[in-house]
Amino acid sequence: MNQKKERSITVIFEPEGRKVRTVIGASVFNVAGNVGVDIRSECGGKGICGKCRVIIQDMKAVNKVTGAEMNHLSPSEIDSGYRLACRTVLKENITIMIPQESRIGERKIQVTGLERLVPVSPFVAKFYLALAKPTLDDARSDQERILDFLKDKYGLKQLEIKSGIVKNMPTIIRQADWAITVTVWNSQKIIAIEQSDTSKKILGLAIDIGTSKIVGCVVDLKNGTTIGVGSIENPQIIHGEDIISRITFARNSEEKLETLQTLAFKGINDVINEACAQADVDSQNIYEATIVGNTAMHHLFLGVQPKFLALSPFIPSISKSIDLSASEVNLKIHPMANVHVLPIIAGFVGADAVANVLSTGIYESNKVFLLLDIGTNTEIVLGNSEDLVSCSCASGPAFEGVHIKHGMKAVTGAIERVHIHPDLDYNVEFETIGNVKPHGLCGSAMVDVVAELAKHGIINQRGRYDLKVNTPRLKNVDNNVEFILVWKNESATGKEITVTQKDINEIQLAKAAIYTGCWILMKEKHLKSEDIDQVLLAGAFGSYINPESARMIGLVPEVPTEKINFVGNTALSGAKMTLISQEARNIAEKLSNKIRYLELTRDPDFNSEFAKAMFIPHKDSNRFPLARKDFRRFGKDVQI
Amino acid sequence: MNQKKERSITVIFEPEGRKVRTVIGASVFNVAGNVGVDIRSECGGKGICGKCRVIIQDMKAVNKVTGAEMNHLSPSEIDSGYRLACRTVLKENITIMIPQESRIGERKIQVTGLERLVPVSPFVAKFYLALAKPTLDDARSDQERILDFLKDKYGLKQLEIKSGIVKNMPTIIRQADWAITVTVWNSQKIIAIEQSDTSKKILGLAIDIGTSKIVGCVVDLKNGTTIGVGSIENPQIIHGEDIISRITFARNSEEKLETLQTLAFKGINDVINEACAQADVDSQNIYEATIVGNTAMHHLFLGVQPKFLALSPFIPSISKSIDLSASEVNLKIHPMANVHVLPIIAGFVGADAVANVLSTGIYESNKVFLLLDIGTNTEIVLGNSEDLVSCSCASGPAFEGVHIKHGMKAVTGAIERVHIHPDLDYNVEFETIGNVKPHGLCGSAMVDVVAELAKHGIINQRGRYDLKVNTPRLKNVDNNVEFILVWKNESATGKEITVTQKDINEIQLAKAAIYTGCWILMKEKHLKSEDIDQVLLAGAFGSYINPESARMIGLVPEVPTEKINFVGNTALSGAKMTLISQEARNIAEKLSNKIRYLELTRDPDFNSEFAKAMFIPHKDSNRFPLARKDFRRFGKDVQI
Repeated sequence: MNQKKERSITVIFEPEGRKVRTVIGASVFNVAGNVGVDIRSECGGKGICGKCRVIIQDMKAVNKVTGAEMNHLSPSEIDSGYRLACRTVLKENITIMIPQESRIGERKIQVTGLERLVPVSPFVAKFYLALAKPTLDDARSDQERILDFLKDKYGLKQLEIKSGIVKNMPTIIRQADWAITVTVWNSQKIIAIEQSDTSKKILGLAIDIGTSKIVGCVVDLKNGTTIGVGSIENPQIIHGEDIISRITFARNSEEKLETLQTLAFKGINDVINEACAQADVDSQNIYEATIVGNTAMHHLFLGVQPKFLALSPFIPSISKSIDLSASEVNLKIHPMANVHVLPIIAGFVGADAVANVLSTGIYESNKVFLLLDIGTNTEIVLGNSEDLVSCSCASGPAFEGVHIKHGMKAVTGAIERVHIHPDLDYNVEFETIGNVKPHGLCGSAMVDVVAELAKHGIINQRGRYDLKVNTPRLKNVDNNVEFILVWKNESATGKEITVTQKDINEIQLAKAAIYTGCWILMKEKHLKSEDIDQVLLAGAFGSYINPESARMIGLVPEVPTEKINFVGNTALSGAKMTLISQEARNIAEKLSNKIRYLELTRDPDFNSEFAKAMFIPHKDSNRFPLARKDFRRFGKDVQI
Repeated sequence: MNQKKERSITVIFEPEGRKVRTVIGASVFNVAGNVGVDIRSECGGKGICGKCRVIIQDMKAVNKVTGAEMNHLSPSEIDSGYRLACRTVLKENITIMIPQESRIGERKIQVTGLERLVPVSPFVAKFYLALAKPTLDDARSDQERILDFLKDKYGLKQLEIKSGIVKNMPTIIRQADWAITVTVWNSQKIIAIEQSDTSKKILGLAIDIGTSKIVGCVVDLKNGTTIGVGSIENPQIIHGEDIISRITFARNSEEKLETLQTLAFKGINDVINEACAQADVDSQNIYEATIVGNTAMHHLFLGVQPKFLALSPFIPSISKSIDLSASEVNLKIHPMANVHVLPIIAGFVGADAVANVLSTGIYESNKVFLLLDIGTNTEIVLGNSEDLVSCSCASGPAFEGVHIKHGMKAVTGAIERVHIHPDLDYNVEFETIGNVKPHGLCGSAMVDVVAELAKHGIINQRGRYDLKVNTPRLKNVDNNVEFILVWKNESATGKEITVTQKDINEIQLAKAAIYTGCWILMKEKHLKSEDIDQVLLAGAFGSYINPESARMIGLVPEVPTEKINFVGNTALSGAKMTLISQEARNIAEKLSNKIRYLELTRDPDFNSEFAKAMFIPHKDSNRFPLARKDFRRFGKDVQI
């Protein structure tokens, strides 16, 4: 027995956070296949195709790199921990990151969001210069020749030439036979000099660095059109799923902090590649980038030690916007491109929230908006043109399928909608992304499941399974109760897909955190649910949620469904606005000062409110009259 | 015979440019010792002391690095070509650089120059901040806390924080328990944040990158006092003694251009070390540096391809001043220190000339000044507050002792003054630096020698030795005539120190170039010698020259001796002025536009004027009435 125990190890697959037990000597590829964690392969695990790339953090926990892997992976990839899953043999407990490129399913990521039209006035502009060739009579320096031309023809004065481009300047100009295109940033600095007329090639980049995902878009700055989008798992995830674990990772080591920063750069560069490939453009024609992200992602991107964000009084270091050169942050765009990092609001309300407010326009409306960007951290903003107040809730990654037994991301094979028919023997109707047999269920399905289970009394108001319900779908093994959502024969893995008591509890924790945040903001502004004109759900998850189910479980203060709007990835939309509009960038700077921040845990009612919000939909059913009516309709009145 | 010829190789010792023949298998140390090239040694060439460090460019021309060398040299030094002279065996023709650290003699470099008093108003300022600690009620970001303090207490608004310092900011502030000192550049940017009160430690650096020498000074910015100076051979010299050969070296290769740039950085860093050691200060407390140099040195420092400077129409690439971070140019001062590179005037009139004009103040005088900075390239400026015109002459390195048979730098053991007594059998009276037995003669002695030889008719007006003069000092071996300046028994080497016909010719070429430059500028401004109120001789060489001798050989247009002033290294003085005075920096920028540039070779009279100036003092003796009188006094009237 003991011997057997010693030979058993734990493997955690990221980004799902899927924890499995296996034996020493198993290959990563086989372990993943056995539990339905999808890893791409064309050769079926023979070390031939090189598609099953995974990232290993602790090299001591696996075998040495094999010859097959050396054929498929570059030395720098091997240094970064890349391995082929089929050639990697497990020796110890380990965490394994499966990068998006190694996924079977197409990701269903909401990259773009609601966009408001703004006049296109980017900070970068290109000018074509047909310069007079120098002679002994006109021996002006290259610099003077260029500056004189820009002044005479375009009225640009006092331009500075970025030191990074002076080295190649004389050669480029002469190779171009004095016909060049210069890129000017903010009517202040020459950031690029190119041969011949390239004035039509002028691109920008907007990036949203999320804790889970990095998304971005490439924009044609001539007209403000998005021409390519890209998205990727945030590769930092291997060092922690949530903000706190990443901060913990980087806390005491310059080197680890740099590791996370480098991973952010790598992720962004992958997004740039994808977006540029989609648009068939050269990333070297990107002359400006705008970056948003929550405060921890913002600090990690800048390489700023983030540990003080996690220590009371939760102080960010840099809060105002900052401009860098692309070369300073290793972004694979024009090296002298300006990288504008948007301002943040507080330790846990970042530049993404500023971008959300900007792109939804709630700062200039008279109506009262409740804006939620649901993610591992959920940022909430409440208010209108008069006043805006914000907070942050640690909602956790449950809505992303993490820590849910059969949870998965919203990719092909994920159940995304669930409907339970109590009159048909609790038959479960479900919709799967890609219309294939299901592998598991994603966040929006979990919200549906909890709502349906509650509606039909299969769980009670506290979220506990009611074993008195007469259905073969309720399975009780050693007091671990599960609801069988998908029978073995219906699933892609040949195994049941179930929802455990713990799964439901994870969703309760998440929704309680979010609701409590909303409630404390409303208390601050003396507002009630009926005072809210619009609830805006931003972010990838917010786009796929069923508003009826959300209302049923008490995720947000109860408003009529028609007042709930999905706005998509407004963080990226806001970043794009600041990319194409000088005015929008100025507004973003002002918003970062205008939006007040509330530290939720300072509210004396926080703990009691959180406990009440753990109920489904809430301990105080008066706050959810519509949900109560729904429950009534299905014969299950809420008990206080 | 043939075999013997094959075994003979040529060795060139830099920076002297001393060319010697030797045999394959000889050690560098012995070859240098045999010809009087001084190399330091304490062990006498046994590989023990490690002092005889030299730099070898072509490793294939010598033996492999020995164990003794590995003990004394770091791997990076070995990579850079450092070897021990006593362990290095010659195999092929080779150029060997002897760095200053390996010299026996103390260099006699004029580091500082005439300084004009300016009100001290540097661009950098330090502020001590005793910040209030953050609380949940005052959760401003570190950045806001600092900016608010600077605004409230010091009235500084809209400050930017340099991206290079944000990384460590939160940690530094907390380690300092919120008592910090910030350094602000130009009331615009925070460039440093330090723990506790360091406001008294605020230093600046001024550097003059000469073709032969890099000199610099460290300045206390509280009061503008120079507290340490440093000087070194420009380490680029191994890749060419003069500007043109360095440009040729860098012409077709990014890598070679980078090599020269890196050597400039290394040289400057050595100067920084020396100056800081002298002042006993930490170079990390240097927050700003100002850099001057001729245009080629300026371009090489910036890494800008300089080849177009050498091609008609001789166009510089960057001419206006440029500000960089110290980290961009690898200077070992505070990494975010601002490095201000002064503007240049033209392809061969650089930032050093701007600094000369600034520090001598000739731009604001009514008098007419002729300012010469004599070096491998001599820059000349003529004029006053109304108008200034400049040119550049390729005077070559003869005045630095280079290409002179027994020439040497102005170090211990160099003859610096010579007087010949025709009535005492042409007895030679000489003064040696350090009052030791002479090794050779430096530039100022060469000017004396030529003047004395001419005065006493030992050479004629064309500079040819007159063998009819009856003295044992005139030696004619196979028609190679030499004048024996020092007898064997008087010299340190035990060998005669002589002046060859070729040596005299080198001096004639140099002085003709300089005189022609002066004359063409005077023609441009319709001025005659008598219109010149002051001749200012700048630069190291200019400080030691005997004005009587200079007049005698026709180095500069003839003015009474009292009108000749030595102003020292005014290039460095000017750089220092722009370091300590904002006003001076503004003036420098204006001067670079105001000073006109004349391309000498475009003047139709250039060639004929040059030919006439080869005479001693000049073919047209009417231009040198005083010198003519001197010659008369010694009974040798000048023949036209």
